[in-house]
Amino acid sequence: MPPKRIIIDTDPGIDDALAFLLALASPEIKLEALTTTQGNVTLETATRNALAVLELAKANHIPVVAGSVVPLVQPLRASAHVHGESGIGNSKLPTPKSKPREGHAVDYLIERVLAEPNELGIFPIGPLTNIAMAIRKEPKFAKAVKELVIMGGAVLEHGNVTPQAEFNIYVDPHAAHIVFHSGIPITLIPLDVTHKCLLEQIHIDRLLRIDSPITRFIRSAVETCFAHSESYGGKGCALHDPLTLATVIAPELLTLKELRVDVDHSGGVSMGKTFGDFLGKTGKPANMRVALQARGDDFVELFLQRMETLAKTISV
Amino acid sequence: MPPKRIIIDTDPGIDDALAFLLALASPEIKLEALTTTQGNVTLETATRNALAVLELAKANHIPVVAGSVVPLVQPLRASAHVHGESGIGNSKLPTPKSKPREGHAVDYLIERVLAEPNELGIFPIGPLTNIAMAIRKEPKFAKAVKELVIMGGAVLEHGNVTPQAEFNIYVDPHAAHIVFHSGIPITLIPLDVTHKCLLEQIHIDRLLRIDSPITRFIRSAVETCFAHSESYGGKGCALHDPLTLATVIAPELLTLKELRVDVDHSGGVSMGKTFGDFLGKTGKPANMRVALQARGDDFVELFLQRMETLAKTISV
Amino acid sequence: MPPKRIIIDTDPGIDDALAFLLALASPEIKLEALTTTQGNVTLETATRNALAVLELAKANHIPVVAGSVVPLVQPLRASAHVHGESGIGNSKLPTPKSKPREGHAVDYLIERVLAEPNELGIFPIGPLTNIAMAIRKEPKFAKAVKELVIMGGAVLEHGNVTPQAEFNIYVDPHAAHIVFHSGIPITLIPLDVTHKCLLEQIHIDRLLRIDSPITRFIRSAVETCFAHSESYGGKGCALHDPLTLATVIAPELLTLKELRVDVDHSGGVSMGKTFGDFLGKTGKPANMRVALQARGDDFVELFLQRMETLAKTISV
Amino acid sequence: MPPKRIIIDTDPGIDDALAFLLALASPEIKLEALTTTQGNVTLETATRNALAVLELAKANHIPVVAGSVVPLVQPLRASAHVHGESGIGNSKLPTPKSKPREGHAVDYLIERVLAEPNELGIFPIGPLTNIAMAIRKEPKFAKAVKELVIMGGAVLEHGNVTPQAEFNIYVDPHAAHIVFHSGIPITLIPLDVTHKCLLEQIHIDRLLRIDSPITRFIRSAVETCFAHSESYGGKGCALHDPLTLATVIAPELLTLKELRVDVDHSGGVSMGKTFGDFLGKTGKPANMRVALQARGDDFVELFLQRMETLAKTISV
Repeated sequence: MPPKRIIIDTDPGIDDALAFLLALASPEIKLEALTTTQGNVTLETATRNALAVLELAKANHIPVVAGSVVPLVQPLRASAHVHGESGIGNSKLPTPKSKPREGHAVDYLIERVLAEPNELGIFPIGPLTNIAMAIRKEPKFAKAVKELVIMGGAVLEHGNVTPQAEFNIYVDPHAAHIVFHSGIPITLIPLDVTHKCLLEQIHIDRLLRIDSPITRFIRSAVETCFAHSESYGGKGCALHDPLTLATVIAPELLTLKELRVDVDHSGGVSMGKTFGDFLGKTGKPANMRVALQARGDDFVELFLQRMETLAKTISV
Repeated sequence: MPPKRIIIDTDPGIDDALAFLLALASPEIKLEALTTTQGNVTLETATRNALAVLELAKANHIPVVAGSVVPLVQPLRASAHVHGESGIGNSKLPTPKSKPREGHAVDYLIERVLAEPNELGIFPIGPLTNIAMAIRKEPKFAKAVKELVIMGGAVLEHGNVTPQAEFNIYVDPHAAHIVFHSGIPITLIPLDVTHKCLLEQIHIDRLLRIDSPITRFIRSAVETCFAHSESYGGKGCALHDPLTLATVIAPELLTLKELRVDVDHSGGVSMGKTFGDFLGKTGKPANMRVALQARGDDFVELFLQRMETLAKTISV
Repeated sequence: MPPKRIIIDTDPGIDDALAFLLALASPEIKLEALTTTQGNVTLETATRNALAVLELAKANHIPVVAGSVVPLVQPLRASAHVHGESGIGNSKLPTPKSKPREGHAVDYLIERVLAEPNELGIFPIGPLTNIAMAIRKEPKFAKAVKELVIMGGAVLEHGNVTPQAEFNIYVDPHAAHIVFHSGIPITLIPLDVTHKCLLEQIHIDRLLRIDSPITRFIRSAVETCFAHSESYGGKGCALHDPLTLATVIAPELLTLKELRVDVDHSGGVSMGKTFGDFLGKTGKPANMRVALQARGDDFVELFLQRMETLAKTISV
Repeated sequence: MPPKRIIIDTDPGIDDALAFLLALASPEIKLEALTTTQGNVTLETATRNALAVLELAKANHIPVVAGSVVPLVQPLRASAHVHGESGIGNSKLPTPKSKPREGHAVDYLIERVLAEPNELGIFPIGPLTNIAMAIRKEPKFAKAVKELVIMGGAVLEHGNVTPQAEFNIYVDPHAAHIVFHSGIPITLIPLDVTHKCLLEQIHIDRLLRIDSPITRFIRSAVETCFAHSESYGGKGCALHDPLTLATVIAPELLTLKELRVDVDHSGGVSMGKTFGDFLGKTGKPANMRVALQARGDDFVELFLQRMETLAKTISV
C-alpha cells in the first residue's frame, strides 16, 4: 500500500513539532507540506518554527506555506511570551536556511486539493482558521479533500484553556463550526484521548541514549511542557498532535465513534466547547468519527520507537 | 447517631418515588417533608403523586407542600403526556386521602429552615426553582440550610435532554445558577454517577418474590422506564434520585471531588450545561462537592435490600 | 371619578423621590403604599429613603414594605457610593420616625392585589425583581393586578448604562422578561420619552421662590443629577420616574403604541436591551403599550405646578 | 476634482441595481467594478443580475467579479423565491452577453486595493462576507482601502428582518464584526436614514415620461418593492443602497456622527443588532461615521434627476 499523502496545518508549538518528526519517521505517511497558522504562537514564529524543525530533520525539501495571521472572528490570542520566545520550549532550533513558499496557505491548500481531488488528507493540529477559510473561499474545496484528522476539542473531558474548551477550538470556534459542518470526512482526536498519551522523563532518558539532534531537540522541547504539566492536570507532556497520525500508523490503538459534534461559538461561558449528540437528541446525523478511547501507553511506545529510528539516521 | 433530618424537594417522577421509599426504608434518615415543584410533571400531578406514594408506604403523616408552578425564567416544560398521565409510568397509585399542607413550598422551606438553623438538609431531586426562590426571597435562608444534596447536572458526561444538559438543570438553569452560588454547602449527584446505578429486570424479579404493594408499585413504575431506557443510552432504569441518599446511608460508595461548578444559562446551544473548573482556570474556589465516581452495583444491591425490608413491613 | 389607587415599587433614587411627591400632589392618584427594592441603592438605603421622603411630605401614614435584596439571577449592582451615601444626591432628608411594615414586599404585593382583584395598579420605577417574584410565587397574582406602569427600557433610544440597556432593565433583565410575558396589562415609559422631560436650573429657581422643605429638597436632590447630566447626554435632570404618573394625570401628553416588546437576557453584549417588534416579524401579539413620544415641556410644566401646590401646603 | 473611484460590493437586489445606475449617472463617481456576494439572492443570480444591469445601462465594460457563495459562519439565507426568480422584482433584464471576470472577488479586491493603496473606495451594499474575507486573508488590505461606505445596520431604528436586525448585517454578522473592527475608515448608512428616502408611485410616473429601458426597468423593479412595502412599515420603496452614494454626490444631505458601533453576533435574540456607544460607556474610540439624519426628499429628487439624465442618454 502506498503511503498516505498528507498536509499538516499547524501552529508549532512543542507537540506540533513532535508530530512532524513522527510523520517523517513513519513510512506509512508521505508528508507533502506544512501550512502554518497562528495559535500557540504568532504566524511568523509558527512559520519559522516549521521551517526549523524540517531543517533539523533534514527534510527542508518539504514546502512550508504561511497562512492566517489572526482567527476568523475572535481576537488574536497567540503570544510570543507564553511558550517561550520560540514557542517550542527551550529548544535551540537551527536558523532555517529555507524560506516559506510564496502565497497564502489558504490558496495553496485549495490549489493542491483541487489539483488532485480525494488524494490528500489534511491534518490540522492548530486552530482551524486556514481550513475554514479554504472551505468558504472555494466551494469545491470541501468535496475534494480526502479527509481531515483534527487535533482539537474536549468531548467528555474538561477543557484545558477554559473549564470547557480545548485550546485549538477555543482560539477559533467559528472556524471549527465551519469545518465541522463542511461535509468533509473528519476524524477528531480530542483531549479525551490525547491526555492518555503522556511523554514522561523516563521516556526522555531512554531517547537520550541515542546521541542525535533529534533526541536533544525532543528533550529541550518537552522541558517547558514538563514544567507546566501540573497546571494542565497531567503528569507528563501529552502527545496531542502526534496522536492524529495514529489514525494512519496504528488505527487499532484508537476507538472511534460516529457522532454529531458541534461547537459553542456564542461568546458566553461555554465558548469553544465541543459537544457530542450521544443520544441523538438533535435528530441530525453524525458529522465525524471521534476518538473516545486510546491505548495511550502503546502509542507512546510506538512514538519512541519511531523517534529512535529517526534519531539514528540523523546522528550528527 | 440520630438520623439525618431531611426535606426532599421533588417532581415525582418515577425515580423520585423510589427515593421517597428509600428514605422511608432507611433508619439513618428522618424524612420530614416533601416539597413539590414542576418538572417531570406539572405541579398538580407532582403533588398528587407525592401524596400517593406516601400513602402507599403508609407514611401520610409526612407533610407535602406544593411549590412552584413554572420555572423561574424559562417556559414550563412539564407535560402530562411524556411520562404517562401520572408521571410515574403505568403504576396504579392509591388516590391519596390526605391533602397537601396549606401555603407555598418556598415559605414552608424558609420557615422550617429558619426555625431550626443548620439542622435540616434539603435534597432537591427536581428542578431547583423552589430552592432558588427561597434563597432570593429570604436572605437568611442560605446561611441556615445545613446542606443541599442535589440530583442534577452532567459534568464529564453528556446530557440526557440536550446533547449537553441534564433534565433537572435544563428545566430551570437560572435557578441552578442561583443555588450553585448561594454559599450553601452542596453535594452534587450528576448523571456521571447515576448512570452507574441501573435497576434491571433481574432486580425487579427478585423484588417480586415478596408480595407487597411496594414491590408491585416498583415493578409497574419502572416498566415505562425500561421501555424508554434505550433512548437514554442505558440498559436499565437509573436510580438517579435515590442515589442522593447514598450520601447519608452509604457515603463510601461515592467518590466526591471539591469543584467549582457553574451552569450555562445564556440561552444558546449549551443552555443548562453544568461544567466544572477542574484546572482552576477561573481562579475561583470550589462551591460544591461533586460525585464523579460511584460503586453502582453496590448501591443497587443496597437499594434492593432496603426495598425488601420495607416491602415485608407493608405486605397487604 | 375616584382617584386611581396605586402602589409604587421603587429604589429611591432621586427621580423616584420626585415621583412620590408628584403622586402625593396629584388628586387623581391615591398612593397606597411603597414597596422597595435594590437598584440605584441597596435595599436598606432604598427603604430608609422611601420612609424619609414620605416623612418630608407629611405622608408617613403610607406603608413602606421592603422587598428584594438582590436581583433574580444577576449579581447585585447597587452601590452606596454611586449616588452619594443617601442615593438622593446631596439632599438632607429627615431621619424617618416611622418604620417599614413587617413582612416582605413580594408577599405584601400578593396579599394586597389578591384582596382586591383588578383594583390596584402597580408602578414599578426600579428593577422589576419584586414584581417578577410575586408573579412566580403566586400564579393568581398576574390576573389580579389591574395594570403595571413601568419606567424602564430604551426601545428606539440608546441605553444609559450600556450602549443598549437602560438601568432598571439591565439590573434585572430576567425579572423584566418574566414581567413582560406575564399577561398583566403593561404601559412602558422608556428612555425614549423620559429623556424629553428635563428639569433644568431655571425650573429649580422658579420652585425656590416658595420657601418649603419640598422645594429645598428638590433643589438638593437634583444637584447631583445636574453634575452628572452631561455623561448621560442630557442638559438637565430627566424626570424618568415621575413621567409614569402622566398615564394617570395627563395621558394626552403621551403617544402610546401597542407593541410586542422583549428583553435580551442572554448575558452577551445586548444584555438588558429592550426591543420592539415593530414590523410583526415574530408573529406574536403586542404585550404592552409603549410611550414612544411625549410632550416633555408640557409635562415639566405640570410637574412644576404640582410641586408648587404641594410646597405651599408644606411650608415649614 | 477627479471623480471618486469606487468598487461596489453587492447582492442585487432591486435597490442595488438602482445604486449601480446612480453611480453610472453621476460624474462625481467612477465605478471601477462590481464584486458580488450572496444576500438577497444566491451568488449566481447576483452575478447574473449585476451583469444584466450593466448591460442595460450600456456599461458592460465594467468588470463583474463573483465572490462568496455563503456567509462566513451563518447558514445561507438567500432564496430565489423571496424576491422573485430574478431577485429584481418583475423586471425583465436583458440576458447579459458579457461574463464575470475569472477569479474570486476576495482576491480581486485584494489585488486592486494593494495595487493602488488608498485610491479605491469600496461601497458594500450587501452582506459583508467578501470584505471580511479580504481583511482576514490579506493583513495589508485594511490599511490600503481608502474607505468603506456601507449600507447596513439599524442603530436607533428597529430592524427589518428581525425586530432588531437589518438584513445585510443579519445575513453575516460575523463579517460585519470583522469589518467594523478592521481599522478601515467607515461611513455607515443605516436604516435610520435610508427609510427617509422613499421612491413612491408619483416618482415612477414622473420617470416614465421619458421612454427608455432605464425608466421601464426602474418601474418594473420597484413594483415588487411597492407590493411589500407595508410589511416593512414603509409607504414606498426605500433607496437604501443608492443613498451610500450621497456621501460622494451630495454629502450635505447627510448628518454624520463619529461613533463606536458594534454588532451582536452571539446567536441570541439580538443577533445582527448594530448598536452605538453614544455615551462612551465602553471607553473605546469611535470606529466609524454613522449617518443618523438625512434629507430624504432632497435625495430622492437628486436621484430622479440623475435617472432622467441617464434615461435620456439610453433611449434605445
